[in-house]
Amino acid sequence: MENNVFELQYAMDTFYFLVCGALVMWMAAGFAMLEAGLVRSKSTTEILTKNVALFAIACTAYLVVGYDIMYGDGGSTLFLSGIALDGAADADSLTASVLAASAEAGFSGDSVYSDASDFFFQVVFVATAMSIVSGAVAERMKLFSFLVFALVMTAFIYPMEGSWTWGGKSVFGLYSLGDDYSFTDFAGSGIVHMAGASAALAGVILLGARKGKYGKDGKITPIPGSNLPLATLGTFILWMGWFGFNGGSVLKLGDIASANAVAMVFLNTNAAAAGGVIAALFVAKILFGKADLTMVLNGALAGLVAITAGPDTPTPLYATLIGAVGGVIVVFSILFFDKIKIDDPVGAISVHGVVGLWGLLAVPLTNDGATFMGQLVGAGTIFVWVFVTSFITWLLIKAIMGIRVTEEEEYEGVDIGECGMEAYPEFTKR
Amino acid sequence: MENNVFELQYAMDTFYFLVCGALVMWMAAGFAMLEAGLVRSKSTTEILTKNVALFAIACTAYLVVGYDIMYGDGGSTLFLSGIALDGAADADSLTASVLAASAEAGFSGDSVYSDASDFFFQVVFVATAMSIVSGAVAERMKLFSFLVFALVMTAFIYPMEGSWTWGGKSVFGLYSLGDDYSFTDFAGSGIVHMAGASAALAGVILLGARKGKYGKDGKITPIPGSNLPLATLGTFILWMGWFGFNGGSVLKLGDIASANAVAMVFLNTNAAAAGGVIAALFVAKILFGKADLTMVLNGALAGLVAITAGPDTPTPLYATLIGAVGGVIVVFSILFFDKIKIDDPVGAISVHGVVGLWGLLAVPLTNDGATFMGQLVGAGTIFVWVFVTSFITWLLIKAIMGIRVTEEEEYEGVDIGECGMEAYPEFTKR
Amino acid sequence: MENNVFELQYAMDTFYFLVCGALVMWMAAGFAMLEAGLVRSKSTTEILTKNVALFAIACTAYLVVGYDIMYGDGGSTLFLSGIALDGAADADSLTASVLAASAEAGFSGDSVYSDASDFFFQVVFVATAMSIVSGAVAERMKLFSFLVFALVMTAFIYPMEGSWTWGGKSVFGLYSLGDDYSFTDFAGSGIVHMAGASAALAGVILLGARKGKYGKDGKITPIPGSNLPLATLGTFILWMGWFGFNGGSVLKLGDIASANAVAMVFLNTNAAAAGGVIAALFVAKILFGKADLTMVLNGALAGLVAITAGPDTPTPLYATLIGAVGGVIVVFSILFFDKIKIDDPVGAISVHGVVGLWGLLAVPLTNDGATFMGQLVGAGTIFVWVFVTSFITWLLIKAIMGIRVTEEEEYEGVDIGECGMEAYPEFTKR
Repeated sequence: MENNVFELQYAMDTFYFLVCGALVMWMAAGFAMLEAGLVRSKSTTEILTKNVALFAIACTAYLVVGYDIMYGDGGSTLFLSGIALDGAADADSLTASVLAASAEAGFSGDSVYSDASDFFFQVVFVATAMSIVSGAVAERMKLFSFLVFALVMTAFIYPMEGSWTWGGKSVFGLYSLGDDYSFTDFAGSGIVHMAGASAALAGVILLGARKGKYGKDGKITPIPGSNLPLATLGTFILWMGWFGFNGGSVLKLGDIASANAVAMVFLNTNAAAAGGVIAALFVAKILFGKADLTMVLNGALAGLVAITAGPDTPTPLYATLIGAVGGVIVVFSILFFDKIKIDDPVGAISVHGVVGLWGLLAVPLTNDGATFMGQLVGAGTIFVWVFVTSFITWLLIKAIMGIRVTEEEEYEGVDIGECGMEAYPEFTKR
Repeated sequence: MENNVFELQYAMDTFYFLVCGALVMWMAAGFAMLEAGLVRSKSTTEILTKNVALFAIACTAYLVVGYDIMYGDGGSTLFLSGIALDGAADADSLTASVLAASAEAGFSGDSVYSDASDFFFQVVFVATAMSIVSGAVAERMKLFSFLVFALVMTAFIYPMEGSWTWGGKSVFGLYSLGDDYSFTDFAGSGIVHMAGASAALAGVILLGARKGKYGKDGKITPIPGSNLPLATLGTFILWMGWFGFNGGSVLKLGDIASANAVAMVFLNTNAAAAGGVIAALFVAKILFGKADLTMVLNGALAGLVAITAGPDTPTPLYATLIGAVGGVIVVFSILFFDKIKIDDPVGAISVHGVVGLWGLLAVPLTNDGATFMGQLVGAGTIFVWVFVTSFITWLLIKAIMGIRVTEEEEYEGVDIGECGMEAYPEFTKR
Repeated sequence: MENNVFELQYAMDTFYFLVCGALVMWMAAGFAMLEAGLVRSKSTTEILTKNVALFAIACTAYLVVGYDIMYGDGGSTLFLSGIALDGAADADSLTASVLAASAEAGFSGDSVYSDASDFFFQVVFVATAMSIVSGAVAERMKLFSFLVFALVMTAFIYPMEGSWTWGGKSVFGLYSLGDDYSFTDFAGSGIVHMAGASAALAGVILLGARKGKYGKDGKITPIPGSNLPLATLGTFILWMGWFGFNGGSVLKLGDIASANAVAMVFLNTNAAAAGGVIAALFVAKILFGKADLTMVLNGALAGLVAITAGPDTPTPLYATLIGAVGGVIVVFSILFFDKIKIDDPVGAISVHGVVGLWGLLAVPLTNDGATFMGQLVGAGTIFVWVFVTSFITWLLIKAIMGIRVTEEEEYEGVDIGECGMEAYPEFTKR
């Protein structure tokens, strides 16, 4: 009987991971639609291709080496040993070992669930980090250069910083972020979002702005997104998927305290997004005199990024405020990056980077276990590591195969140059 | 051991609420896409902005006051006390009180689950009610006037009628709908859908029709939706989200009887939507000689609205028929409202209002606990309350800030006037 | 207490079916978007109408007769007896019988769950099979002729082949696929996908190619899809929904071994899709010199179809390879069908038919319980049955009401001819 209860708890926690993982996988569609809606129609096919391909590369690279770097004990990769080769063959002995682990952990202790469900949940996070990059470098980067970077990022750069934080390993033998500096990043404002933005920033600096975006006299030419319903859909998809992203990061569901935590995380995630929308709506109205939809969408995402580092401790009203501050920050950050001529077509560096940092720094406000110092050390470590390694990687790719399409290809659109097909062949005038 | 079983049941019921709530939140995307697809391209950015912003306002207003009006005991608001401030701090005492409540309720008795999950599920319902309004007033209403109404609706009008029905409180001390008149509205054909439609009707009457829609000689000019794939996507999203809307309204999953009820509700919800599609397809074919896609989509939604008041009692075939009747009604209702010059660009008043009433009246057909008299009293109470208070609210907003954009803005499109950007800047000819 | 544990397991398994079923229902939206994106804008309204209507017809036909043919004992149809008429009335006796069945099965034995949840999960599979057909016959078939075929397919053709495989009944009294030939098709590479493709092939042969597709001199005129973001969205929706499709086909969640199997299936499903993307990307790059987005999307779907027959036994890396082979096959298959002038606008016959066969044949590679002979006999039986009965059905429909629109209607677009409305009335030039 007791074993049956453990079996049910194991099944419930596993299913919870899988449902949350499926929601995070769904975020890949959200990034694809958001970015496709915010670029010009002549660059749409390419960004769609990039988003589908990077997801596939991330899943495969993390399977082959990334997961092992991040969570492995160094002995073997996932597919050469471990869960993968077990499977159905020795289901009975697996069940026995799970029951033993469950009995040791106790009912409300550590979580015990399927390794495969853990991998599934983790792998979709890697893809999220990489998706962030694709929007910032849109409309002018070579597709295959981008995909090479995706491989390095998901196989090595992200897993390394992940190993120091969630993986609990020491940073080059120096210190362990998780223990010594009590760095707290619940679901990845820093580990996932700021990391993605740091890699994007490195790429954008090397790549340069789109032709015509910044005039010699300091004039900034707005390049409006070509399909706002698509961008809105992408935002809603991300909003929905974020319930899995944050909700699954409780890592356990099957007892009262864990279930309460998961519910609170869902509620706060939603509240923060709402706060981000309202704040961005009013800030934009004040600044521009209009209800700027792209800022509203970025406000929603900023609210979500902001709460991600600590969705478990604030009250819902506090979460709304944390999200609202994110919504204010993102508007000014987007204006700032445009002023310094960092051309980020979808605002990814602001949404995920700047607001990701805000999210990390907001944790100590409601979580006694976190300190500003610890958060800063963690944020600094992540930024320096990801930015520097990404910069070097982009440099190498630039040297070997180039990262920017020709001026003619950019003018005509990367869709024709890279993919050989238009996204809307019957609609746009040529 | 017994406690562990209660803990698992609690966790399971909480997770069920969260999954269903995420699906209802997803309906916000459905309404946004449906409405964006059914308006003209020059009004698309604005309706997207409206849908994102109203969701954010609904979530925040319901958090601050609405939930407390609807379900509170009058002592305090959610964020000033109660679950929000508890949280992790006293997890142990919370667990103890839950276990005590579970033991008292017994395994198959009342449901016991996370308060936060309950709030999360309820809040997305408020947003649904409000989403219904946005489509009906599209293409000619001032954005911020609409958002002020959204605030009043979600903070006060909806919570009040919700308190008389699901909240079980008496109507101005007169009578309690739930008890005295055995009003039965399982998931909200009336409480959510007809309520939204009543608020919309009040707004549309004060607002008037779009320019050019109705000629002086009684001629009705059809204004076709600009993006039917988007409208279809929205319908599919709503269809999917409705499983959470109705399925979650069983309010409990974790015993055999409840699980059977949830499964039956999923099945009947799907069957009714299918019935609505088939009926609307054939009625339109007979009336117009063509397979009218917008009528087919409205048929699906009508089937869903129709079954929402009682998805638990009919057999699947009966549910198909209830949905099919909804699909027939919606076609004629849309034609009727056009004839009396009530201009509802997306057919929301017909789909959610007229068919919502049909849903309420269909309950006694398969549910012995419901009576036509009780359903009529409930429907009347909801309609009178929501329509009258909405009418007054719209009137006040009209007097203070106006509700209609200028003729020039309407001609040019509210996108430029209200949001300063086009939805499809590269596609439409100006 | 023991009963309570059984009740929880029952509830958990039921909920797992419902969540997976909702994901499969969501695939209907995926097919609709994929197909709407891959046809020309003048045929978009019609294909959307077709997809909504076929889903509704499939759900109703399977309810009335299909489910009973496939799984019934021949005594009665679902709605005339059985679960439908039980429902709430005798909840107590239902609970008692479930508990008795659970006690007999034992905790880790056969699954025991709500009949309604089983029907809900099965019915969305029927719709999937039928959705496959709609893309292949796009842009030139009469809408109502298609819907008549949908009725025959979902009420009779699919349920018959399903009864021989998953239903375990003998093939015309000759042999039982499941027992005698150990045919293994976990989630339906053959039973669902190849079946749909076989019906599509029969229809396409009788229907002929679109005007202008194949020149007299062997020249093939590419007809690019009109909306690639929509096609990409559809692919992501299908990818997400496939977790329900394959994951739910474990048929049980609530013990350790089952939970592990479900998790492995999710992981492998994702890995195979990733493999398909990467393979198709590189094959297309080599063949055409460009990153062909439509091939990449078909690669993802091919990976998913390929793993569907056996997602439970391979390691994730093996699953990636099975998917990758699918991704290679699909590119060459699409080129092949174009060469022999089988005009399939969305590549459905290649993705679901040819790769479906590959999926069946890949099972014995990692599953000792399967044999190539058994798989071939099963595949042959399904193909011959579905192709022949479909061919006869299409022939009859052709004789009675015709299957092809007039040349003028085809030239002008089936949207105007069949539905009386354009999908994008403000965007396309006429």
